[in-house]
This record gives sequence, C-alpha cells and structure tokens, in this order.
Amino acid sequence: MKNYKIAVVMGSTSDLPVMQDAIDILKEFGLGVEVDVVSAHRTPEKMLEFGQSAHHNGFNVIIAGAGGAAHLPGMLASLTPLPVIGVPVKSSNSIDGWDSLLSILQMPNGVPVATVALNAAKNAGLLAIQILGATDSEIAQKMLDYKQEMKEKVNQMSKDLKS
Amino acid sequence: MKNYKIAVVMGSTSDLPVMQDAIDILKEFGLGVEVDVVSAHRTPEKMLEFGQSAHHNGFNVIIAGAGGAAHLPGMLASLTPLPVIGVPVKSSNSIDGWDSLLSILQMPNGVPVATVALNAAKNAGLLAIQILGATDSEIAQKMLDYKQEMKEKVNQMSKDLKS
Amino acid sequence: MKNYKIAVVMGSTSDLPVMQDAIDILKEFGLGVEVDVVSAHRTPEKMLEFGQSAHHNGFNVIIAGAGGAAHLPGMLASLTPLPVIGVPVKSSNSIDGWDSLLSILQMPNGVPVATVALNAAKNAGLLAIQILGATDSEIAQKMLDYKQEMKEKVNQMSKDLKS
Amino acid sequence: MKNYKIAVVMGSTSDLPVMQDAIDILKEFGLGVEVDVVSAHRTPEKMLEFGQSAHHNGFNVIIAGAGGAAHLPGMLASLTPLPVIGVPVKSSNSIDGWDSLLSILQMPNGVPVATVALNAAKNAGLLAIQILGATDSEIAQKMLDYKQEMKEKVNQMSKDLKS
Amino acid sequence: MKNYKIAVVMGSTSDLPVMQDAIDILKEFGLGVEVDVVSAHRTPEKMLEFGQSAHHNGFNVIIAGAGGAAHLPGMLASLTPLPVIGVPVKSSNSIDGWDSLLSILQMPNGVPVATVALNAAKNAGLLAIQILGATDSEIAQKMLDYKQEMKEKVNQMSKDLKS
Amino acid sequence: MKNYKIAVVMGSTSDLPVMQDAIDILKEFGLGVEVDVVSAHRTPEKMLEFGQSAHHNGFNVIIAGAGGAAHLPGMLASLTPLPVIGVPVKSSNSIDGWDSLLSILQMPNGVPVATVALNAAKNAGLLAIQILGATDSEIAQKMLDYKQEMKEKVNQMSKDLKS
Amino acid sequence: MKNYKIAVVMGSTSDLPVMQDAIDILKEFGLGVEVDVVSAHRTPEKMLEFGQSAHHNGFNVIIAGAGGAAHLPGMLASLTPLPVIGVPVKSSNSIDGWDSLLSILQMPNGVPVATVALNAAKNAGLLAIQILGATDSEIAQKMLDYKQEMKEKVNQMSKDLKS
Amino acid sequence: MKNYKIAVVMGSTSDLPVMQDAIDILKEFGLGVEVDVVSAHRTPEKMLEFGQSAHHNGFNVIIAGAGGAAHLPGMLASLTPLPVIGVPVKSSNSIDGWDSLLSILQMPNGVPVATVALNAAKNAGLLAIQILGATDSEIAQKMLDYKQEMKEKVNQMSKDLKS
Repeated sequence: MKNYKIAVVMGSTSDLPVMQDAIDILKEFGLGVEVDVVSAHRTPEKMLEFGQSAHHNGFNVIIAGAGGAAHLPGMLASLTPLPVIGVPVKSSNSIDGWDSLLSILQMPNGVPVATVALNAAKNAGLLAIQILGATDSEIAQKMLDYKQEMKEKVNQMSKDLKS
Repeated sequence: MKNYKIAVVMGSTSDLPVMQDAIDILKEFGLGVEVDVVSAHRTPEKMLEFGQSAHHNGFNVIIAGAGGAAHLPGMLASLTPLPVIGVPVKSSNSIDGWDSLLSILQMPNGVPVATVALNAAKNAGLLAIQILGATDSEIAQKMLDYKQEMKEKVNQMSKDLKS
Repeated sequence: MKNYKIAVVMGSTSDLPVMQDAIDILKEFGLGVEVDVVSAHRTPEKMLEFGQSAHHNGFNVIIAGAGGAAHLPGMLASLTPLPVIGVPVKSSNSIDGWDSLLSILQMPNGVPVATVALNAAKNAGLLAIQILGATDSEIAQKMLDYKQEMKEKVNQMSKDLKS
Repeated sequence: MKNYKIAVVMGSTSDLPVMQDAIDILKEFGLGVEVDVVSAHRTPEKMLEFGQSAHHNGFNVIIAGAGGAAHLPGMLASLTPLPVIGVPVKSSNSIDGWDSLLSILQMPNGVPVATVALNAAKNAGLLAIQILGATDSEIAQKMLDYKQEMKEKVNQMSKDLKS
Repeated sequence: MKNYKIAVVMGSTSDLPVMQDAIDILKEFGLGVEVDVVSAHRTPEKMLEFGQSAHHNGFNVIIAGAGGAAHLPGMLASLTPLPVIGVPVKSSNSIDGWDSLLSILQMPNGVPVATVALNAAKNAGLLAIQILGATDSEIAQKMLDYKQEMKEKVNQMSKDLKS
Repeated sequence: MKNYKIAVVMGSTSDLPVMQDAIDILKEFGLGVEVDVVSAHRTPEKMLEFGQSAHHNGFNVIIAGAGGAAHLPGMLASLTPLPVIGVPVKSSNSIDGWDSLLSILQMPNGVPVATVALNAAKNAGLLAIQILGATDSEIAQKMLDYKQEMKEKVNQMSKDLKS
Repeated sequence: MKNYKIAVVMGSTSDLPVMQDAIDILKEFGLGVEVDVVSAHRTPEKMLEFGQSAHHNGFNVIIAGAGGAAHLPGMLASLTPLPVIGVPVKSSNSIDGWDSLLSILQMPNGVPVATVALNAAKNAGLLAIQILGATDSEIAQKMLDYKQEMKEKVNQMSKDLKS
Repeated sequence: MKNYKIAVVMGSTSDLPVMQDAIDILKEFGLGVEVDVVSAHRTPEKMLEFGQSAHHNGFNVIIAGAGGAAHLPGMLASLTPLPVIGVPVKSSNSIDGWDSLLSILQMPNGVPVATVALNAAKNAGLLAIQILGATDSEIAQKMLDYKQEMKEKVNQMSKDLKS
C-alpha cells in the first residue's frame, strides 16, 4: 500500500475523546496519522500556517473536529487544496450541537467542507479512507472487506435474535 | 491529467436546476461526468445495481442530490466503497430544508456521506475535485489556481468598493 | 381470528429495548409477529430482498424502527405494496430525535410511511392492529375493548385522585 | 374488488386544495370516498359523533387533514377503532408547519395517528390504499402496478436526460 | 371574597407533580379548586361532557395541563365559554417540549387557549387569579400584595449579595 | 352589560395591521377598547407608567402585541395586577416568529403572560372577552352565541361541499 | 490604569453560578465591578432607576444575565446610553436555551444588546474589557497579553499530545 | 469630538445592502468609517493581516457581517484586541438565518463576538457608538439625544393613532 498521511486536528484536547475514533479507525486500516491541536480562535497564525502547508507536508486529507461556533474545518478548507472533513463536536455549552453542525456544514460556494454527523469521528476516518480509495483500488478493496464485516455482524445479530 | 469519472445522480429531473452547478464546475475542471436519474424510492433495484457496480464501472466519486426524506446519498454510500457526496436539496414541501439536511448528514457509524450545504451542488463538485486532488498533485494545483481566482475577485470587489 | 403476520424489523439489536413494546402489544392481541435485524446501511441487499418478498411471505404489515438518518422504513416502503409503519428511534448521537423523525416522516409523493411519535413502538403495534381492523371486525372489536380498558384506567385515576 | 369506503375530513374548506390530492388518488384506484368538513374546535360534538360512528357507517379508513394546533386527526383516533391517517397542513399562520406536524405526530401511547409528510395528502391516499391492500391481494397488486408506473417514469427521465 | 371555583385538569396523574404548583398557589390565595383527570384521547366523551358543563357547574376558569400532542386544553376551549389556561408539560417522550408547546399555543382563530411557559403550572394558577382580578378588586389587591412580596425577596437577595 | 375597558397596545403602528383584529372583535362584542402605541424599548418610562396605572384607569384586561425580542407583554405583566394577553407578531426581521413567540411565552414564575398563537390578535380579543365572561354570565352567553355561529358556518361548508 | 466600573446584574442569585465567571475575569484584569440583583419582572421600578442612572453613577459597561423570556438586558439597553452585554442563561425550565438566546439577541432597531453565547459569562467579561480597550491602549495591551497566554496553553496542549 | 474610526467589513459586496445601515448610522453620528471586503474563506491571508493590524491602524471597533457558516466576525475577534461586532446576514441559501446566527454567536470562551440580531446592521452601528460612549461622555450624550428622538417618534405615533 502507498504511503498516505492524514491529519487529525482539533481545537483543544477536550475534543480528543470524540476524535480518537477517527485516529483508531485510520490506524486499523494501516494509514499514517498525525494528530495536533490547532485552534482557529486561539492560535489563528498556526492554523494559517498549518492550512497553507498541509499539502506540501505530504498530507492527503485533513480531518478537523470542533464544537460551538466551529470555524476550524472551514478555515482550513479556505487554505488548502486538500479535502477537509469536518466533525461537529457536541461540546458542553453547545445548543444541542446545532451550532457546531451548521457552522461546519453551511460553507459558502467555493470552499466546501465534507461534513459528517454530530460526533461521528469514526465516520470521518472512514470517509478519509474512501477518499483515498477513490483512486487506490487496494484501499477500495479494504473498504469492501470492512463493509462485509459489518454485514456479517448484522447477520449474526439477526441469527442470535431468532435463536 | 488522468481519466477520472464522477457520477452525478439525483432522484428526479426536478432536482436538475440545483444539481447542474456540480456538473458545470466538474466540466470546467475538465473532468469526466456522467449524469443519471436514480430514485431510492421509485427505482430501488436500479439504485442497488448502480451503487454496487459504480466502482467497477470506473467511477471515482459519486455525487447524489436529494430532498425531503433524502435517502439516495446514504443508500449509495451503503453499497459502494467510493466516497459519496450528498447535496441536501430544498424541495417544495421540505420543512425549510431541515429534513433533507438531516436525512443525509446524520448517517450511522460505518457508512459516512460527505455532506455539503443546502443546495450547494457547486461545492459538491469542488469537493469531488479536491478528493481527486488528495492523490493527484496536478488537480491539487488546479484547485490552488481556482482559489487564487476567487481571491482576486474578492480583491477586485474591495478595490471597486473603495474607488 | 384469521392468521395475520406482522414483521417488526430494526437496524440493530440496540433498538430492541424501544421496539419490544411493539412486539409485546401485538402478542397481547394474539397476532403473529416475526422479528428481524435488517440494516438499510449495512445489509442493503438483505433489505431489498426482505422488502420485495414480504407480501409473498405472508406479512400483512411491516413495522420498522430506526434512528439518526433513518432510511429503513422508507426503503422498505419503496419495495413493498404493504403498509409500512415507521418508528423514529432517539438514538445516542441523534440530534434530539429530529433527524430520525424527519428522515422517516418526510417521504416523497408516491411512497408513504405511516409514522408514529418518537420511540412510540407501542403505538406502532396498535396502528398495525388498527390496520388489520380496517377490514376485520373481530379485530376492530378488540381495539374497542382496548380503548374501553384505557378509559377505565383513567376513570380509576380520577376516582383515586378525588378520594 | 370489494366495496371499501374511505373518509376524507378536514376542519375547513380552506384545506381542500391540499386534501384534494388524497381524494383524487383514491378515486383513481376506484375506491369509495366520502368528503366532509368536521372541525375539532368549532364542531366538537359533530366530531365526536363522526368518530364514534365511523366504523358503524362502513368506513374502513379515515384521512384527516389539519393545520396549526391540529387536533382533528388525534381526536378522531381517540374515538374510532379504525386507522386514522393524519395530514399536517401548512396553513397561513403556521410556524413553517412545525405546529401541524408535531400536533398530529406526537400522540401519546394508546392512540396512534398514521402521520404522513407535510401537505402530503396524496401519500395519505396511497397509505389508505396500502392499508386495504394489507388484507386484499387485489389492491396490493394494484399498488404494485402503481409502483411499476412510477419506476417507468423515472427510467424515462433517465433516458431523456441521457439522450 | 366571592366564591370562585377553578378547575385543574390533566390527562394523567403522571402530570400531577407539574400541575400541583397550580393547585398550591390557588389554595394559597384562598380560591376554590377542583382537580380531575380528564384525558382527551382516552376519555373523549368525559372530556366533552366536562367542557360543555363547566360553566353550568360553577367554574370560572379552567386550567389544563398536557404533554406531547397536547389536545386537552384546546379541546376544552372548543367546548366552553370560559377562559382556558394551557400548561405545556414536558413529558418523557416529548421532543424537548416543543410538541406540547405548539399543540397548545397555535390554536386557530375563534378558539384561544391562554398558554403559559413550559411546565409553568404556578403561572397558570397566577393567571387564573389575575383573570378573576380583572373584575374583582379584592383579588387584584391580593395580586398586588403578591407582587410586593416578590419584590421584597429580590431586594433581600440584593442586600445579601452586597453584604 | 357592565362597562368594561380593554387596552390594546403595541410597540409601533407597524403592528397595527395585525392588532386590528383584536380591536374589531372587541368592538363587535360591544366592549370598550382603548388603543395606544407604547414601546418597551423606546418609551420605557411611558410603559412603566401605563402598566402601573392601568388598573386605576379602569382597564380590566391588557392586550399587548410585539415582535422580535418582544418585551412589552411581559414588562406590562410585571407592572399590573391585571391579566395581560400577549400576541407574538411575526415582524420582518424575526426568525420565522420564534423570537416573538418565546420572548412572550417563556415568562418566569410569578409573572404570567396569557400567550396566543403567532399573529393571532383575533384570539387575543376573544380571550379578553372570555376573561370577562369568567365572572359575567351575559358575556359568557355572548361567547356561546359566537361559538354557535362558528359551528353553523362549518356546517354550511359541509353542506356546500356535499351538494 | 484609569478607574473603570462595570455593573454585573442578574434577575436572581440563582444565576450567580453562571455570572460569577464574568466577575472573576473582570477582577483578574483589575477592573472595578459592582454586582447586583435586579429583576425586570419582579423589580421593574428598581430596574428603571438602575438603567436610567447607570451612566451618572460612573458605570462604563453593563453586563446583564437572564434566562427564559430574558428581558433584563434589553430593558436596560432601552434606558442607558452605555453598551449593554447580554448573557443568555440556560435556566431550568428554558427550552434548551433558545428562549433566553432569542429574547436577548433579537432586539429591534435602535436598541442593540451585545449578545454573547449561551452561559458565556466569561466572554461577557472579556467583551467588557475589549470595549474599554477600544479607547484605552493599556487595556488593549492587556487583552493582547491574555490572547498570548491562551495561545501558549494551546501550544502546550499540542506539545503534550505529541510527546 | 475625538477622532474615532470604525471598520465595517463583509465577505462580499452582496452583503452591502444589509451592511449599509451600519455605515449610514455611523456617518449620521459623525464618526469615521472605513468599509472593506474581506472574506474569511476566499482571502484568509488578507483577513489575518487585517485583524492583526486593525488596532495599529487606528480602528476602535470592528463591525463584521457574514452569512451562512459565518466565520469572519469570530476569526477577526481571534486576531484583534478590539471589540468585534458581528452581524448575522440572512443570505440566499442560509437555513432561515440560523446558520449565520449560531456561527457568530456561539464563540468559545476567550474570544467573544458582540452579536446583534439577524440583519441588524443598524444596531451594529449603534452598538459601536455606545462602545465609544462607554468612555466618551460627548458620544454618550449624543446617544441619549438619539434615544430622545426615538421616544418622540413613538409618542407622535401614539398621538396620530388617537386623533
């Protein structure tokens, strides 16, 4: 398998319990992951630098998690030609997650963020894998295997329920 | 540039006015596009067949637009190892677009859909391009050029406003 | 009483605590119930097969529960001529249940789902019974008896409160 | 085909433009329809009488449309053993339809209303037909034919788009 | 003071913990209270009878609490010439109280319900008192005294905070 | 009939097209009405004076309409022992009326506002009449007559539809 | 540093646990703070007097916290030429904070309230400091130092995560 | 009057019709205004430079308007010690303005944005004036005069209505 590298960034380590699911699934698929804390609102210069240089630094995909008025995913998307996956995090003073969700999803024309469900860091990891699988059939095959496993688990549930 | 192929599908030609923006931007970047009408609720068998065979048929990315209880993007995502981009369409009897948006975004763990903003088909097209650019530096460069153009347009607005 | 058979399906056994209420009330009325785990997103082929064959397999009504971007009820409705009752389940990462509710309720013209309240599996069971009672006066009578019992419970509450 | 009779009721003739779709599709399937104006809030006694007697009067299914604080479907459901289908109507001073939708859908345990999408009177009609088809294979077959027609229309759209 | 009588009704004793606040404040003001369980959906005939006869039975005001698709306050308002105060109760499967609130508040022209805040049974009681005070200056004076007490409590808080 | 007087106040004459319905129905019932423009945010001192003196000035009920962050009804309620009826007005920059509605309805314990539906000034007028009817049987009878008229209109609609 | 004075007011000491964050950060920056309990709905006269006299009493900025139908910030803003910062407090019977938020934010033209996030009293304090920093470069410098500290904390998180 | 300077920035000239109200009121008060187009997502470097240098460039307050996933106000707030006023703009594909509102308001601790109502650019201008008036009694007096004018307009409305 080729050498790919995915960045998983978040505004604070308080988001790590949610974002860990992305890291875990990427490692399970044998992909390179670099994790960092980059805050749009507290380290804007570092964020700018991170976003501008990500594609020079060998990253293929960026996963960014943020809560409340969640600006990190969209700001990174404004700075990089790479696909950015946004994970809306339901933080403590969030309004039931609606603020995170809309701040990440509703990007203006020209600067998309690939948004996943609230707190769905695992799906962010899987989407990064599918993005690589778009042009790499080995990874696409791994994803098919993963889907097969999910199918078997559901079928097993079905058997257990009926027995 | 390599030969890439992107599928743009929708449940009805009534969604075409919105989805056309995706087709246009993809063509502007010189990418192969195939457009089709596939309805999750009226042609479920065709949808299944389309989803299962997409990666065999040379597609790299699928863009799917749908309104109301919008099941097409998520169902295709359940069938293909390819990345699926979902466009929530604000259709006539939709509840202000909330139904389309949540039906596409809030996918369960295991089956992500890369969701863009309401009616944001142009961003869906740009995200597909960025997905290819994740592993193709020529396309990444084209995306950088595109970003440069946007920047210049804003700077021109700024000049016009001040003059 | 005639032999009727109702299918109660859900995407995962994690929905069983909610869906059990449907099973219980159907059994209380002496109706045949078959329970299965069928996931729209993890076992789409099984779902297609289940939906296409349900009316050949002797089912009269299908009850389907699902949470988040809840596609199972609507997809089954696209595949069967039978009435499908959808139960929006408030799952853990759901946005207060709004996603499940709208994904099930807001079906496009041509493919209705009979939606009940959030987590209201008991009402899904009762609705299935009323559906059979639409053409079977014995079942309609049982439903009248059930209503009478509810009335007496409320009247008892009233008496207890006043005493 | 057996003689079935479906009631289509609404609180005011101002709801008729929406509810007409239910009447039309029921007639298209050759079913008996009776239309009436019954207001929960302005003719509560008539509503009570209508609900209590509907199953004696030969009705098999009741379809009720209402807007705002929409009590008609739920109140009829409290009075009849028949299945009641509720159509939330987006009336003029409604809060984007949310009031109609929640007032009809969120019924307490014991008294379900089979709710369809906002303004989806056509789907209410189709659901009534599927309810009859639950025990009448001739009607189920007609529903399959209807689904086949929808499929062909989508396939035609697909052909037109590609040509 | 004249003899007034206020009815406090609810659909189930499960609403009593919320509704007790109304009863307590009414008794504190020395007003007559009658409490009953009347369910719109389980005892519709009793509800009709209760609503139709309330003004003959010496009631001056009706307070009705209900949750979910809350039809009791609006239905009573359709039956009586008396003012009906509605208390939206946040019940267990309610969607954060929105369903109760909108089902009670958004009544059609002709049939108002005087709606108070979510779970605000105490305010329902106070509103009933103000309604009597609209034409009875003794009660209006008691309400002024009550307001004075509230003022003094806040002023005491202010002093305690500053000391 | 006794001499009653109802105040109808609003923050700006721009709310008059909505509030006129309250004035009209009160006059139709032969009740005394005084209309004024009182703005919580632009004439707070006048508002204070108006609220404090209303019961001395012979008013029995206050109806207050306001949009956006609608503080007029609640502030008047804090100043008067009289019942205050609040009409949430859907003004131009309102967020679909939600702001008006919640600012009026969600009053803290101790200070209720009798809230009616969005823009429902007619119902505010009818509620004021019912408030007077709580202790005045002549007015209660007029309300019963009004209800009878509504009933006859619906019955006429029913006849027209069937003929 | 000049002598500045900021008022922190709230409707009840029950809001103090939230509002304490404003007091703490203001003291940390060495600014004068006066805390008081002023209730729009229970002490309207005191509120009027407080608002009218605040700028004569040497205050530069007012911070007001309130929950539910939160009228205190907007009413103070109607009375004073000073900037008023509103803190929406998520109180117990609030509808997830939406009522507080909209009642404070959606002020009509002419009377702004500088609204901060739900429960964000700390940010209210910081905004008051920035308001003073708008014309006082010493305070602006302190704010820059504060931002530097935040930056260093994030950078430390980043180092800890990578080590 | 001292020389003050306020920046009014927006992401696109399409927001100018809304933002013009801020410019007009500031000029009416005789304050210096500089208007510019700065896009968080299309000119992130310019935005960074603008934010970092604003306080060196003599600005006292920044007003920023943005729609959808509105990141401009919050990002500027992360870069400057000056107070930033955010105007949520209801743009064409916005979800009724909720996205703009929450993306601006719900800022994390440490980085406040003084948010005003949806499209309320006039109030943003007035808030900037009040911010300067916090330490400049001449401006505070002008604000009092402005409030007096508003009062007189309302009083005139009152007279016109009664005559």
